[in-house]
Formats: sequence, structure tokens, C-alpha cells
Amino acid sequence: MTKQQVVQKLTGAPRAPRKTFGKAFAPSNIALCKYWGKRNAELNLPINSSLSISLGHLGTETVISQNESSDDMWLNDRHLDADETFAKRLIAYLNLFRPSPDFFFKISTTNNFPTAAGLASSASGYAALILALDDFFDWNLEGKALSILARLGSGSASRSVYQGFVQWYRGASDDGMDSYAEQLPEVWPELRLAVLTVSHATKPVSSTEGMQKTVETSTLYKSWPEKAERDLDLLRTAIQYKYFEQLGSVAESNALAMHATMIDTSPPVLYWLPETVAIFRKIWHLRRQGEQLYFTIDAGPNVKLLYEKPDEKMIQNHFPHAEIINPFGGI
Amino acid sequence: MTKQQVVQKLTGAPRAPRKTFGKAFAPSNIALCKYWGKRNAELNLPINSSLSISLGHLGTETVISQNESSDDMWLNDRHLDADETFAKRLIAYLNLFRPSPDFFFKISTTNNFPTAAGLASSASGYAALILALDDFFDWNLEGKALSILARLGSGSASRSVYQGFVQWYRGASDDGMDSYAEQLPEVWPELRLAVLTVSHATKPVSSTEGMQKTVETSTLYKSWPEKAERDLDLLRTAIQYKYFEQLGSVAESNALAMHATMIDTSPPVLYWLPETVAIFRKIWHLRRQGEQLYFTIDAGPNVKLLYEKPDEKMIQNHFPHAEIINPFGGI
Repeated sequence: MTKQQVVQKLTGAPRAPRKTFGKAFAPSNIALCKYWGKRNAELNLPINSSLSISLGHLGTETVISQNESSDDMWLNDRHLDADETFAKRLIAYLNLFRPSPDFFFKISTTNNFPTAAGLASSASGYAALILALDDFFDWNLEGKALSILARLGSGSASRSVYQGFVQWYRGASDDGMDSYAEQLPEVWPELRLAVLTVSHATKPVSSTEGMQKTVETSTLYKSWPEKAERDLDLLRTAIQYKYFEQLGSVAESNALAMHATMIDTSPPVLYWLPETVAIFRKIWHLRRQGEQLYFTIDAGPNVKLLYEKPDEKMIQNHFPHAEIINPFGGI
Repeated sequence: MTKQQVVQKLTGAPRAPRKTFGKAFAPSNIALCKYWGKRNAELNLPINSSLSISLGHLGTETVISQNESSDDMWLNDRHLDADETFAKRLIAYLNLFRPSPDFFFKISTTNNFPTAAGLASSASGYAALILALDDFFDWNLEGKALSILARLGSGSASRSVYQGFVQWYRGASDDGMDSYAEQLPEVWPELRLAVLTVSHATKPVSSTEGMQKTVETSTLYKSWPEKAERDLDLLRTAIQYKYFEQLGSVAESNALAMHATMIDTSPPVLYWLPETVAIFRKIWHLRRQGEQLYFTIDAGPNVKLLYEKPDEKMIQNHFPHAEIINPFGGI
């Protein structure tokens, strides 16, 4: 099944928008059990299920309307050239939703998280876009369909159509109709994240490319799906009982295992900088002293701390530059 | 089968020494395909076969004779207390070879490599000791038996009873009689190693303990034996055809995979320091510029470069503090 066929199956026959504009917000998300490896690159179907926490008010707002002669795209008030990589990918995604080939969009996208925080913008970006399209065309799709459509833009966007804890089921079918995310019922208002930015530089290897090389060349990756499945079960229990030590230690172990598969890739993919290792060691040192903090890390050098609200002073003392995130604040 | 039974099977009934002293030298070795994981901790039987290069004249010399009332042990001209960890392990090993319980040894052991080089001393130490015992008791054992007996002291010592390239066959039997090392016929006089010392500090986790924790808790470790087997085959071909790029890239990949399994251990075992990662990045940067150098790294923070003699100037320019080793020099 192609992307276009998935879109038609979920949104029906192409039709003109029913509103003058569509508008939506979607949160960024940080995975506690990582999405790492695709079984189908066209449809962004994952090898393993994953689990994330959405970041509340930190995310992307998108406004979409019709435009005259070509797509008109704005990111954080900057006009995008149609030949930029980012714009090309966006146009390819929009092609799936045009009522006719001569229908063009005007899109204005704003990320409200500091770029310095090193958060992925494609997850909240494609989630906000599909929510805005749903508003614009007045499809009134349910979460499951929105999650599948967001996934076609970026795998982890499938999780950003919800707030709170979100699980993305890997699914098994070739068309990916069973590969979508759902929000978990639990809330954990005391849970906090804090981003430690090591580098703002663009990654030398994109996460899409790193993922693909890992699946192709890492022998240790063969055991990753089993590891991810086990970690996801443990995280579900940790969330159910608000058992922070288990949540933190499993999330940390999962992130390190993902990086271990990257390190085992040929040629090696090492996103860590010397400062990244120094931060790991500082966190482990604090834990040995009895402090309750863990970390997760995505395909990049920046580290995300996990802790609970009563430890906020401790975190601020030891990591004065940390960007603190309250995922359940104001939801 | 116990250690004692293995010793009796190989050396026959206990007998008095036939010489006033025994003396031997054994080289240190650096594995290109690592020994990582035991299937039997009592007999040091490995999960995977491994392949190393012995370090020529860098190693341990041991002289052994009889002593009156207790074991008298000297390491680099320092007298050892019987309750030091190192001495206890040595006494336990010597117990396997006493002609009678009231027979004691005087042992003088000297490592001729700089302690700063961060080379493992247990491999050359137990290899030199078993060679000295063979001389002292005049057993005239062949290499295979000496390798097995050295293995009872320290797994990697099984490889240090030879010079050159050495392969340690994992074996399959419970008594370990098929788990021994052999010297490969090839020589590679142009091959060089260089040790980059990042830290002289004692490792927070011993390699024995790191290995055990990895086998017990790392999911990714399940794929390590397959990885090691493939790497060993590739290294054999690289050595046969003196194909340096393959030798270097496979050795580097094997070492990184071993560290990847450590990183996947719970709690994580990370031997790298920030400086270790900085050295990796420097090596990869030089390779992208066309230089021919690779690295391997054992259970510690220090990095060992692999290169060929024509590149010595380049290595000395970029790594002025490197300790250069010529493994085939003077053999």
C-alpha cells in the first residue's frame, strides 16, 4: 500500500476545504522506550513499539489555508525556499492531501520551544500539520487515524497527536493500519524533564540515516526488538504504579541500548561528545550519592534528565543551565 | 571437572621440581577479536573464540624456586603481602601445583612494560608463571597444555604463551580440554600498535566483573557471540592477505561492539572517559582525511592504535604521547 492509498482510505475522496483556515497545536515528545528501526521506510512502520511522554505546551502551532499559485511555507516567521530539504519533504507530504494538483497551501508553523533545547521538531511539526489539515478539511478524524496520518510524515509524529504518556503500537500488517499511537490513561503531575544542551550543531548523521545503518549493519541490533519489548512492559508497570526508580532506570537503560546499537554500526555512529560522557558520569555519581535522577538521550549529543518535582532544587543546583519541562503542567 | 583435576590430567602425579629454579618470559597481548563472556567461571571457559597479537619483548619475566616456610612473592621488586588481592589469587593458583601441602614457592615477577601503558598484566603474568613452572618441574609440556594451564589463572593468559598472532578456540566440552590457544603461522612485520593512555587510575569495575554483569543483564549481548565469530573469520582473512584496512576496521568494530554490550548492561558499565571519546573522534576525523589508522580498546579508558610502519611519522605527529609497540620486532 502506498502513502496515497492510506490517505484515501482514511480521509475518503479528495474534497475542497470547508473552512477558510485550519489551526492546531501539537506537543513535542520524548521517548522513554525509543523508536529505533523501520520495517517499512515508505510508510514509517517501526520494528518495535515505543512509549513517550508529550511535553505539554512545548510544541508546534500550525495554521493552514489555501494559496494561489504555489505552496507558501513559513517556519518561525521565516519564509522557506521550495528547494530547501525541509520544504521539499513538506511539499511531498502536502501532495498527499491536495484536492487537485492545482490546489496550493499556505502554511505557517511556529515552534514555541527554544531551538537551543535540542528537541526534535518533526514530531510536533507533522502532528500539528495533520491536526490543522483535519480542521481545515473538517474531516473530524479520530485519534487513531490522525496518528497514522502523522506517522506518514515522521514516525515519532504518530505519538505527538496526544498529550501525556503515549504508546505507539508497532503493528504487524503491511499497510500499517494497526501501527498507531494511543494515549495512556495515567497522569503523573510530579514528573519532570530537563534538557541539558551539549551542542546546537546539526547532527552529522540524521536519525533516519543512523537508524537505517544500524538495522543494516549492527549484529547487536538483532536483540534490540526483544530489549524494547521488555522495556516497554516495565515502563507500563512503572507508570501504572508511579514507581519512579523503575521508570527512570528502564528509560536510561533503553536509551543506552539504542546508542549501543549505533556504536555497533559499521562505520560506527557515535552521537556522544566528550561532554555527553561527562554528564552521564555526573548523573551516575549523583545517583551513587543517593540522588534520584535518570536520563534519556536521543540520536544526538544532548541529555534529557528525568526526575520528580521535590528534587527540582537539587537539579537546579547541579545543572544550572538545564531547561526544565513540566509535561503535565497546564494540561 | 575442577581446576585441580585439569592440572593432574595434564602434568601427571605431583612430583618434586627437577631444577633449582625455573625461569620464563611471556609477552603481553592485545585482542583484535575480544574475549568477552565466560560459559564457565571456574575454568575460565569463554563464550566466544578470540584472536590477539602478542607484544614481542613487552611482557613478564618470572623466576620460581622453592621457599622454606611460606610463599614468598615479589612483583617488580616489591614484596607482596599474603593478604593482598593479587597475592591471594596467585597463592590459589600455586596451590594447584604444589608437590605437597608443605611445599612453598619463591616467585619473582617483573613486568618490563611501563605501567603507564595500561596493558593488562594478568595475561603475561600467568603465562610466564606456567612457563616458569614447566621449566622448574621439567614437565616439557606442549603449547596446547601450557595454554590450558595458563587459562586456569586468567582467560587471556591462554593466548600469551605464544608470540605473533594467536587464536584461542572457545571449545565446547565441559572440561575445557578443547579450549586452548594456538599461534597462527602468519607474520606481519609492518604492523604497529600505539597505546594512548587516558587514565592510570584503577578501573572502577574489573574486567572480570564487567564481563559477568554483561552476560547476566545485557539483552544485546545475546548477539555478541555471532558478531565475534564473524569478526574472527574476517580477521583471519585480513591476516592471511595482509589486508590492513580489513584488519583495522574489524578490530575497531569488534572492540566497539564489546563496549556496546557493556553500555547495555544494568547498571551500565561505561569504561570511557570524555577524553576517550575525544580520541575516537580524532581518529575518525583523520580517517576521513585519508589517513590509515584504526583503534581497539579493552575494558578500560585507554585506546590502542593500529597502523602500519610507513605511517609512523603521521602517528607521532598527531599523538606525540603514544607508546609505540612493534609486536614482531626482534622475534
